[in-house]
Amino acid sequence: MKWSKAGPGVIPAWVADMDFPVAPPIREALERRAATDLGYPSWESHVAPEVLLEAFAERMHSRYGWQPSPGHARAFTDLNQALQVVLHHVTEPGDRVALHTPAYNAFVATVTGMQREILPVPAVPYGSSWRFELPDLSTCTVVLLLNPHNPTGRVFTHAELTELAEAAERHDLIVISDEIHADLTYAPHRHIPFATLLPERTITLTSASKAFNLGGVRCAVAHFGHEATRKAVWAMPGFLYGDANVFGVEATLAAWRHGDPWLEEVMRLLDRNRHVVAERLPATIGYRVPEGTYLAWLDFGRPGNAERLEREAGVLLSGGEHFGPGGENHARLNFATSLPVLEEMLRRLT
Amino acid sequence: MKWSKAGPGVIPAWVADMDFPVAPPIREALERRAATDLGYPSWESHVAPEVLLEAFAERMHSRYGWQPSPGHARAFTDLNQALQVVLHHVTEPGDRVALHTPAYNAFVATVTGMQREILPVPAVPYGSSWRFELPDLSTCTVVLLLNPHNPTGRVFTHAELTELAEAAERHDLIVISDEIHADLTYAPHRHIPFATLLPERTITLTSASKAFNLGGVRCAVAHFGHEATRKAVWAMPGFLYGDANVFGVEATLAAWRHGDPWLEEVMRLLDRNRHVVAERLPATIGYRVPEGTYLAWLDFGRPGNAERLEREAGVLLSGGEHFGPGGENHARLNFATSLPVLEEMLRRLT
Repeated sequence: MKWSKAGPGVIPAWVADMDFPVAPPIREALERRAATDLGYPSWESHVAPEVLLEAFAERMHSRYGWQPSPGHARAFTDLNQALQVVLHHVTEPGDRVALHTPAYNAFVATVTGMQREILPVPAVPYGSSWRFELPDLSTCTVVLLLNPHNPTGRVFTHAELTELAEAAERHDLIVISDEIHADLTYAPHRHIPFATLLPERTITLTSASKAFNLGGVRCAVAHFGHEATRKAVWAMPGFLYGDANVFGVEATLAAWRHGDPWLEEVMRLLDRNRHVVAERLPATIGYRVPEGTYLAWLDFGRPGNAERLEREAGVLLSGGEHFGPGGENHARLNFATSLPVLEEMLRRLT
Repeated sequence: MKWSKAGPGVIPAWVADMDFPVAPPIREALERRAATDLGYPSWESHVAPEVLLEAFAERMHSRYGWQPSPGHARAFTDLNQALQVVLHHVTEPGDRVALHTPAYNAFVATVTGMQREILPVPAVPYGSSWRFELPDLSTCTVVLLLNPHNPTGRVFTHAELTELAEAAERHDLIVISDEIHADLTYAPHRHIPFATLLPERTITLTSASKAFNLGGVRCAVAHFGHEATRKAVWAMPGFLYGDANVFGVEATLAAWRHGDPWLEEVMRLLDRNRHVVAERLPATIGYRVPEGTYLAWLDFGRPGNAERLEREAGVLLSGGEHFGPGGENHARLNFATSLPVLEEMLRRLT
């Protein structure tokens, strides 16, 4: 998390990265790189997009049983760039984008900022969790799926994804599947890459930046199962959307290949923390324990919570009003921090 | 330089970076960053594009007497991206781009690959250097200026730039000025930012990557003096062209603010080397000592030199046939290396 925006004593539980130091193999890879060659990436060495895309394919296969083609993938600086590039190529202003709402504030800002219209797939409380009510998608061009879902932390089941895949097939839709939180899924929930269900309509976006806390290094991968989009993006000048940087590639390779022991430990902490939130949260605030992510979606039953809590309680949350339909009475809390800080944050919430 | 492509004993004098370790302040900044926070750039801290763009403006002012507006600049991953983005916005396939030829192979590939047409501004031998014969530019849309010029190493004079500025004004042209080699100008030659002559028509591209040997970190700055282009690029979705990475920003800040003592030392070596090339080159090979850059543009009087020299002499040069009109009989040699390696390279040239 970033403390710099917050004043003294303010706990900034609003930025979507973790308070934990990065995995030792990542740190070592970056320090090695900082001490050696910073020149142009050597396409013959082990730091090249080809190697990155192969590492992506290996990880998807070993971890999720999906075999993407490295040749159908390319690097971007970050997930928001990848999303904007895809939307730029597959939609026009006025087109409808189906989105499970409330939804990640940056995606809501991108879709509406690009003058595309959000067709909400609304979350409704369901037992101890949420379900989403799939509307008629016949007026859409694209489904923008967040799986695991941000901010509710839902990990979609095979049945839910199958229903969505059938609708996408029926209405000739492209599915942009943001799977950046996949590695942050709590057992027994299981992440299912959407591309395994509907490979030829799916564009998958991912990055090691979320699970391995590397937001600043700037490295994401997009896999274009949808051929026409792939051809459209590949037809652009080769550097138009930028190029991978050696630190981003090094960090991602180290994360995906050597970071899992660290990730397992982090997941134990996050698993504890998601339950600590449930135990310590004032009873007036609604919360459904997430199945993935380190995000707690809190229901205050009234609007304006983030501003109020920053002012009155010295805690920075993400204001729910930026998360589209269904967000207004909520705020998003990042619980990827130490137990004392988390307890102090929860104590201050009212 | 990259040695990995070259076989054992092959000297790869073809890649456009230097054999020297990077400046200590850059190394320190990168190691500090690798050891601390890799999360999302904190826009309130000192690693943010705003700080990068201010550092760019400060450097242009203190070093070259130009006062660009940080608000008219933005970061790109690299110079080739910046060029492709600008060409994408200001030209159409079939448009003519004036280019001082022979010209940097990647730019020739970008212009022709984007189906724009090159209008050559041909180099002709002139005393111990070169001059360029400015043709009628009335059929052009854009001038793509490389100043200092790559591969000849010419540093354009005030008179030459003024002539070009007048032509650009007369024919309503946009000037894209690549000034990445500016810091590598040998006294008494003096780099003049084109934007000081024709501010409202000029788009300036630069990066610390060349003078400070940071090709892999990926950070470039483009300044849009031309308002319509600035508005067109600013109107795109904010992340479409990617985002700056923390290492690239850190390295660039350290280079521009604290790298000059190192750069002065490097310039002394390069100055020596450009004359060593003149002294040791076989008499059959033509060479005009460059006024900037660490590139020697060698005239073999016949085509096919790079392939032949790799095969027969174990030296990798950049083949002149990729540098557009006037390049065929040439090859480009990178002399940013140690004296023994340079002498060995020159010994092998025939």
